[in-house]
Amino acid sequence: MHDPVTLVALLHGPDQPGLVARVAGWIFARGGNILHADQHRDREAGVFFQRIEWIPAPAAMDPAVAAGDFCSFAATLGMTARVAASDQRPRIAVFVLKADHCFHDLVLRGKAGEFAGEIVAVVSNHPDIAPAAAAYGLPFHLIPVTSNEKRAAEARQLALLADLEVELVVLARYMQVLSGDFLAAFRRPVINIHHSFLPAFAGGKPYHQAHERGVKLIGATAHYATAALDDGPIIQQDVARVTHRHSVADLVRKGRDLEKIVLAQAVRWHLENRVLVYGSKTVVFD
Amino acid sequence: MHDPVTLVALLHGPDQPGLVARVAGWIFARGGNILHADQHRDREAGVFFQRIEWIPAPAAMDPAVAAGDFCSFAATLGMTARVAASDQRPRIAVFVLKADHCFHDLVLRGKAGEFAGEIVAVVSNHPDIAPAAAAYGLPFHLIPVTSNEKRAAEARQLALLADLEVELVVLARYMQVLSGDFLAAFRRPVINIHHSFLPAFAGGKPYHQAHERGVKLIGATAHYATAALDDGPIIQQDVARVTHRHSVADLVRKGRDLEKIVLAQAVRWHLENRVLVYGSKTVVFD
Amino acid sequence: MHDPVTLVALLHGPDQPGLVARVAGWIFARGGNILHADQHRDREAGVFFQRIEWIPAPAAMDPAVAAGDFCSFAATLGMTARVAASDQRPRIAVFVLKADHCFHDLVLRGKAGEFAGEIVAVVSNHPDIAPAAAAYGLPFHLIPVTSNEKRAAEARQLALLADLEVELVVLARYMQVLSGDFLAAFRRPVINIHHSFLPAFAGGKPYHQAHERGVKLIGATAHYATAALDDGPIIQQDVARVTHRHSVADLVRKGRDLEKIVLAQAVRWHLENRVLVYGSKTVVFD
Amino acid sequence: MHDPVTLVALLHGPDQPGLVARVAGWIFARGGNILHADQHRDREAGVFFQRIEWIPAPAAMDPAVAAGDFCSFAATLGMTARVAASDQRPRIAVFVLKADHCFHDLVLRGKAGEFAGEIVAVVSNHPDIAPAAAAYGLPFHLIPVTSNEKRAAEARQLALLADLEVELVVLARYMQVLSGDFLAAFRRPVINIHHSFLPAFAGGKPYHQAHERGVKLIGATAHYATAALDDGPIIQQDVARVTHRHSVADLVRKGRDLEKIVLAQAVRWHLENRVLVYGSKTVVFD
Repeated sequence: MHDPVTLVALLHGPDQPGLVARVAGWIFARGGNILHADQHRDREAGVFFQRIEWIPAPAAMDPAVAAGDFCSFAATLGMTARVAASDQRPRIAVFVLKADHCFHDLVLRGKAGEFAGEIVAVVSNHPDIAPAAAAYGLPFHLIPVTSNEKRAAEARQLALLADLEVELVVLARYMQVLSGDFLAAFRRPVINIHHSFLPAFAGGKPYHQAHERGVKLIGATAHYATAALDDGPIIQQDVARVTHRHSVADLVRKGRDLEKIVLAQAVRWHLENRVLVYGSKTVVFD
Repeated sequence: MHDPVTLVALLHGPDQPGLVARVAGWIFARGGNILHADQHRDREAGVFFQRIEWIPAPAAMDPAVAAGDFCSFAATLGMTARVAASDQRPRIAVFVLKADHCFHDLVLRGKAGEFAGEIVAVVSNHPDIAPAAAAYGLPFHLIPVTSNEKRAAEARQLALLADLEVELVVLARYMQVLSGDFLAAFRRPVINIHHSFLPAFAGGKPYHQAHERGVKLIGATAHYATAALDDGPIIQQDVARVTHRHSVADLVRKGRDLEKIVLAQAVRWHLENRVLVYGSKTVVFD
Repeated sequence: MHDPVTLVALLHGPDQPGLVARVAGWIFARGGNILHADQHRDREAGVFFQRIEWIPAPAAMDPAVAAGDFCSFAATLGMTARVAASDQRPRIAVFVLKADHCFHDLVLRGKAGEFAGEIVAVVSNHPDIAPAAAAYGLPFHLIPVTSNEKRAAEARQLALLADLEVELVVLARYMQVLSGDFLAAFRRPVINIHHSFLPAFAGGKPYHQAHERGVKLIGATAHYATAALDDGPIIQQDVARVTHRHSVADLVRKGRDLEKIVLAQAVRWHLENRVLVYGSKTVVFD
Repeated sequence: MHDPVTLVALLHGPDQPGLVARVAGWIFARGGNILHADQHRDREAGVFFQRIEWIPAPAAMDPAVAAGDFCSFAATLGMTARVAASDQRPRIAVFVLKADHCFHDLVLRGKAGEFAGEIVAVVSNHPDIAPAAAAYGLPFHLIPVTSNEKRAAEARQLALLADLEVELVVLARYMQVLSGDFLAAFRRPVINIHHSFLPAFAGGKPYHQAHERGVKLIGATAHYATAALDDGPIIQQDVARVTHRHSVADLVRKGRDLEKIVLAQAVRWHLENRVLVYGSKTVVFD
């Protein structure tokens, strides 16, 4: 037996009395059965956030229509809403350079059914990953990026993403900064993994910086990419203990485990519509 | 300015469509403003759990009446409810033997405002803690417990708890098992801290057992006391890493930090009405 | 430039004054340069343990001879020693059933250079893993194990291991108990990953047991296999936090990450000659 | 029966072959029995570090003499050494402002025997802590620090520390920066606890900064104070998980536990002569 299709709404807007009851009442009145509802108030900012998941009434034949209706209703409450159906599986492009641990990890988790989405393209500016992508049966796209021709390369990437109807880009240790123009043109979320506990050690050589500073923990941070380098809203972070015995190479090795787990968790949460961005922060309904 | 008085309901019962909407609607219809609502479904058991917190309408003058009304309403849904007002501060008795680290920790956290309750009595079967209790301004009650006279001692304890209107007993490394008769007579929750990661190493010498077995992590477990030793519903657990270098004395020392943090967190959650027991498990709405 | 070949000795025996100085002096007198030396005393048991790594003098042409000399010397101190050269890379067989996450993880770490050993065989009683093994270029051996014919299957496994000169077997969620006869005949270490925080939840369905008991942390344990099920010396353990929201399926998913990391760390330490077993425990010189 | 007096040497200097053997041989030749020896090489910097602990021969009547002899010997190897006897208990001054959690924690751990040192003075620029210090039987010294008179206040502090022969100052959330002149004049170690995961969020309001940035982990860092604010060699760090639900006040509450544990561990390691500073980093022989 299949699980029934559910709808998930993420909504936010100015806080006011009665929001929890009104949203629940609207769904109930249309024959929906609420499975989960989780909300948060930012008291200082006066903002209300909610993730609510429900099974629509069988008569509400078309989830797309039900989603549109909900967004209209949310607007009457002054709320912005985004609704997804559980049988929609966003199409994902993974961007990768040479370090391939996050790439393998994402693909194997996808095959194990951990993600509510499909990896449909692997993009790199080096051919190294091509055979591994082929072994997994994944289309590989070589798009070389040189400093003079970055704009042209990004245009090719954007065309590919549009062509493949990609809804999420995951930078799996891609090590290239996507320009603000790229992000503005793509208009879809891009998740990046940074190999430090941000805001410590932003930039290009975080393990070297961590070793130099003598920290006792190293970290990894998954965040949405923004035009400002390593400064986007943080989705997930984790750390591991290190000592004076660990060389930079040891930090790199230990960091790989952090990067894999942190990035995979961020991607999983995003695909399950658990992450709401506001300002420079995220609300994660886990 | 004072925070307004809020009501917190913990409810559970057979799952059925519409519960989230009905509960929210009932509160909204009476002028209440829902601040938080968190629910959980145990799909296998078909049970619905909810914690909901709201500001009652000013006209609902008496929180006790509002609480009673809510429980009656919940009963119409087939749900069992418990409602507490945020200005009620349960009265706590701390039972302690000789190891005093959890005792100091609980008292200092109470003074720092971490607990929504009041420690009103310190009970021990040894006089060692008396001066420290006096320095904190806390009444100390010496009730010696000998194996022949355990029943008599428990009768004295019960009389004291009734006299002081104690609503929560915290066993802060008390190292005595309360009898099933005691628990049945007290009829209020008793939280115990066990110095192992239960169900591993139940019983009297867990750090010795952990050292003997050569585990690489030691733990602590806060749970509600039941008549079955070390088998009550678990509220919180945590672990710390150990190596072959650590002697039993080192495990004891490291374990003290675990015990303090785990017990304090369990007590805090309990006092904030975040813990719902069902069967041999807990739902913790944190 | 290559790193020079080093020797690593693991030794243990009755504690006595002067051991550190005598061992270091013996190496120094033969022109060796000690890179690392780590020791441990079990005071209760009166046992001395040491891991010492050194570059032998160039004149000590043959590491095998140097190793033999060291063992003879250690015997004069009443110590048992085991010596390995850093250019020896033990041959590893990975046993796997259907759950393939640990299998992929071990192979990819091997390819990334994390292990001082070589995976030379993949053994399973199901053909499912065969294509993945082939894609990695690893020989796959299908040896079906049925309850009536377990003895015959183990004989085939032993013959294969002998034929391939395997020095370490890794049970990567193999889910079959190797008999005491097998272990006695193989006479080499076997590392198993158990999907619980042992000694809690030994046996076949640990995630179900953990869910049933309502623990707040789940764990994984890597240990040397012994004839007593799930009771061998523990090499490494780790845990992850869970809540009432996590179903058994969630525990399985979260547990996969624990199992991968804990097993890989145990294998890496073993291959770097960092693990010394004594009695039912391990000393891990990390 | 008393444990015998042991000597602990911390030494470092240019790496060269034979150091482990020579140091062990020197102690052994004088009848000493080595209990622990732990060393580290910084290969890039070419520096050798060692912590070695031994029971001197009974004939070496005076530990002070034995210590001096060892330092002279170390100098012949080009090494700088520091030697302490296990029956020396450094005298500690705790500096505190209003937040008293680290103060209580340090004192209670001291009373529980966790520290190889004695708290001999509590120093504050506010009288709030005075009654608590009195209850613990600890001398309290009120030295107000105003911005105009900081120099004069530091002179009074230095005079007090000299008078009391204080060997370690612990800044237990003192919230005042000690001047470079103070540190130069005191010439003894000063351990500070900073309420963030340095180098992230240095400065005065780290929990506010962490909340503003939306990090998913908060941290605490114990380090030796230097003239550069929050930039001294890190001894220990730890983190705790936070979510969007946690207000700044929650971060402060959760942070208190981190601060207590991290600071206590740093102080304990320092007093057991386990911490060696070099450049801007530490080697911690734990």
